[in-house]
Amino acid sequence: MNRASFDTIVTTLTQDQTPRVWSFLVSVFGDLAQQEDAQISGALLRQLTERIGIKPEAVRVAIHRLRKEGWIDSRRSGRTSVYFLTPWGRTQSAQASPRIYSADEGAERAWLVLFNPAKPAPGTDDSGAWISSNMLITSVKPKDGAAFASALTADTPVPGWMTSKVCETPTVLMSQDFATALDGVARQLDPMPMLQPVDIAALRVLLVHSWRRILLRTPILPDHVFPDGWCGADCRAKVAELLARYPNPGLQALEADVDAPTRDTP
Amino acid sequence: MNRASFDTIVTTLTQDQTPRVWSFLVSVFGDLAQQEDAQISGALLRQLTERIGIKPEAVRVAIHRLRKEGWIDSRRSGRTSVYFLTPWGRTQSAQASPRIYSADEGAERAWLVLFNPAKPAPGTDDSGAWISSNMLITSVKPKDGAAFASALTADTPVPGWMTSKVCETPTVLMSQDFATALDGVARQLDPMPMLQPVDIAALRVLLVHSWRRILLRTPILPDHVFPDGWCGADCRAKVAELLARYPNPGLQALEADVDAPTRDTP
Repeated sequence: MNRASFDTIVTTLTQDQTPRVWSFLVSVFGDLAQQEDAQISGALLRQLTERIGIKPEAVRVAIHRLRKEGWIDSRRSGRTSVYFLTPWGRTQSAQASPRIYSADEGAERAWLVLFNPAKPAPGTDDSGAWISSNMLITSVKPKDGAAFASALTADTPVPGWMTSKVCETPTVLMSQDFATALDGVARQLDPMPMLQPVDIAALRVLLVHSWRRILLRTPILPDHVFPDGWCGADCRAKVAELLARYPNPGLQALEADVDAPTRDTP
Repeated sequence: MNRASFDTIVTTLTQDQTPRVWSFLVSVFGDLAQQEDAQISGALLRQLTERIGIKPEAVRVAIHRLRKEGWIDSRRSGRTSVYFLTPWGRTQSAQASPRIYSADEGAERAWLVLFNPAKPAPGTDDSGAWISSNMLITSVKPKDGAAFASALTADTPVPGWMTSKVCETPTVLMSQDFATALDGVARQLDPMPMLQPVDIAALRVLLVHSWRRILLRTPILPDHVFPDGWCGADCRAKVAELLARYPNPGLQALEADVDAPTRDTP
């Protein structure tokens, strides 16, 4: 596949907007270098980011920020530097991965839980969405005996004023746009072209990053409590399919690809 | 059964408080003279009310009020008056009767219904109890598609802050006191004594009146959504059993009993 064709795929997936660089780099390390002892050369980082239109200066700023926040660290290696996740950064990445890479919805079951409106409601993690001050949809059935719990199965009618609190309209629209983009990418990759390792890595990271942006705005709940129009199930399936078609080439192959002379086929 | 024994039964049932006379008379007409053309002589009314300790003057005041409000009307009959329900009074009485005389709970099924808290909630009749401004327990499943409905079966745990809104604590306590009183009456009527028709009528009206006072303070909902301590099921069963043991003697027998000379057995 030539550079122009790959650029079209990138434009489709990024919807012509350069992603926030530091956040994109988190996806890079999460997808390619989450294992202990995994490290990415400065040259590979530059090639990956260059593939999706990020300038070297922006990469330097983002690396500085990620080091300062404790996500990554670096080490001199000969005339260049190599970068790797810190133990804390690896833990963060490992915590988000199951959700991002899962081919299944975040949870199979949900409960509508009602708390006494006359008392302060308890706090919750991202396994739930508050519908009102005492009304929660959660995937974790509460042990609190004072709460009322009603199972929400796939055939329970859940009104729109509830589902709209599970996921905001901008996020629903993002899922629709991403599903459309994924269809476009699937067409551009059919029949399956030969992709260089760095292109594959850039594609994977873009897929993961775009899906992660949507997913992390939503609570861990089954799709059937999401609003009408939510395309999460569709996005999840298509991302999983593309990631399976283009497996991680591995850092060794990627670094070798970077060292090779440019092989652009015009 | 002698007068003193019957007085003990009356005291047990009224818990030593004279019932509100006009309301008691509504129960008298409802139990004994709900049929069209049924009429009660002034003498029978006096005897019935005298049995439970109501003074003739209080009866006259109550009759005046009930006539003024359109519940009953009267007609001269020889040297005395006879009293009967107006068509409107009969309709009121007939509407309340199925609920008061039923051996079954008010409804078999209940739903917890949630309305959009951002919108004004609809009004309801007495087939429901509001738990909060947008939370209703009802025996009538709403057709409103914008409402969320969850079935409350006998094994659904319903927390106390919900059930306490179905029935207030004073009404729960009334049901406990009445259940205890009914146990006392059942003991006093065992073995089953001979009762004069007027005694039977007074007993029936007292039972119906006491139960009606409790019942009409509660929504038409199954017992399993009532608070812990609610003895409604117990009261309902015991009232139904006593009414079955002492069937309505009929107005003819009652009027004949009134005309007969006093047969008090000291």
